Amino acid sequence: MGKSILITGGARSGKSTLAERMTLQLGVPAIYIATAQAHDDEMAERIAQHQARRGPEWQTVSEPFDLPRALAETDGQGPRLVDCLTLWLTNLMLDGRDWMAATDDLRRTLAQQKTPVIFVTNEVGAGIVPENKLARDFRDAAGLLNQRMATACDELWFCVAGHPMKVKPQ
Amino acid sequence: MGKSILITGGARSGKSTLAERMTLQLGVPAIYIATAQAHDDEMAERIAQHQARRGPEWQTVSEPFDLPRALAETDGQGPRLVDCLTLWLTNLMLDGRDWMAATDDLRRTLAQQKTPVIFVTNEVGAGIVPENKLARDFRDAAGLLNQRMATACDELWFCVAGHPMKVKPQ
Amino acid sequence: MGKSILITGGARSGKSTLAERMTLQLGVPAIYIATAQAHDDEMAERIAQHQARRGPEWQTVSEPFDLPRALAETDGQGPRLVDCLTLWLTNLMLDGRDWMAATDDLRRTLAQQKTPVIFVTNEVGAGIVPENKLARDFRDAAGLLNQRMATACDELWFCVAGHPMKVKPQ
Repeated sequence: MGKSILITGGARSGKSTLAERMTLQLGVPAIYIATAQAHDDEMAERIAQHQARRGPEWQTVSEPFDLPRALAETDGQGPRLVDCLTLWLTNLMLDGRDWMAATDDLRRTLAQQKTPVIFVTNEVGAGIVPENKLARDFRDAAGLLNQRMATACDELWFCVAGHPMKVKPQ
Repeated sequence: MGKSILITGGARSGKSTLAERMTLQLGVPAIYIATAQAHDDEMAERIAQHQARRGPEWQTVSEPFDLPRALAETDGQGPRLVDCLTLWLTNLMLDGRDWMAATDDLRRTLAQQKTPVIFVTNEVGAGIVPENKLARDFRDAAGLLNQRMATACDELWFCVAGHPMKVKPQ
Repeated sequence: MGKSILITGGARSGKSTLAERMTLQLGVPAIYIATAQAHDDEMAERIAQHQARRGPEWQTVSEPFDLPRALAETDGQGPRLVDCLTLWLTNLMLDGRDWMAATDDLRRTLAQQKTPVIFVTNEVGAGIVPENKLARDFRDAAGLLNQRMATACDELWFCVAGHPMKVKPQ
């Protein structure tokens, strides 16, 4: 089975940069599976910044919802970087889909991959309890998703100020 | 003296699950000391979910305020799990009590325990500075409480995506 | 070159206390470079609390903007503690200055120091995405600043409940 890695951390903690470096170390060409949807100018600008940083050794696939299919279709072509699970969760929740079932599907598909997969996700639960219920529900879901994916992955890394701490295996 | 452990982490980082596993490893029956008060349906639902996850090897004690008494009364009966200190702090502050004096009392009582105590607490200070003063005061108090209890405990663990990192002893 | 250390963590995670202890271990007298500006009573009270905790082995320099000058002027006099970079960033942004250029200046000056420098900064990116754009921009800037300074420093520490975890070097 292909190696699987989950990289987590706060906003701008260097997760994506670390993930890109780790992915390229696993093989070239690498496949970037983008979950972001450009709903507004701010997000479009952020997507463009991320793309500009990546070089020609990358192929890009856009998949806001069906990550299991994106993994299945790219297996064997090179290491995959999924950036990121938190936006994927946002897409699923905003679209009214069952994110828990989708997470189970993703875990099943991950277990069948022959080439490596690296996931980026976000820590969103270490601030004050949000005042609105939607935000509380989202941070609960994001935390549970992170737990499930971390359990399914071989390695778990936590980024602090651009530097990785290995959480698993110890 | 009984072993004492503090487990911290963000929301849904797997703190309670880890704490329950650690507690049962220290002995059965285990005593669950719940600080939660069911003020509304959302909290009642969360309490019910937590209880459903625990099995028959647990006894449950409800104590929103007087943790020193709860520890003193259950000492010698089995390992205790206090879940969680952040809700305890919330209860004390909402009731207008002196949480610093209460924390000192708790530390004194902890030092006298013969059977182990595991505390769960929350990281609430790693987001943007909250706009309202009450939230800022709460996160300051929560951080100070965590520091004091971490100093008093033999072990400190930090949960990331369901996986523990040992902070102390190193 | 003098040793350089970056200490990060959430609010009230014990960063300043740890930084003060580390600074005094590097030499006496130690120089405290304060970036805080007392805009209101709440901030004035926090500054006073921090000063009261420090003893006579400290000299205090107040510098809300020009950290490179403060470092250059105090080099050779003893170890310096800069507390903190997040307030420095706040000062720069509120004053409409170019914080990225200022950060590059700071890194250049740091590389020339003969006596040690310890920086305190804050984790602000591990909560829910803030609703207002200014807060989002600030947390992005704070994260990038932390990455750049962590890369420039010899050591990086992450504080949890008053206890340090060494992130770099490993």
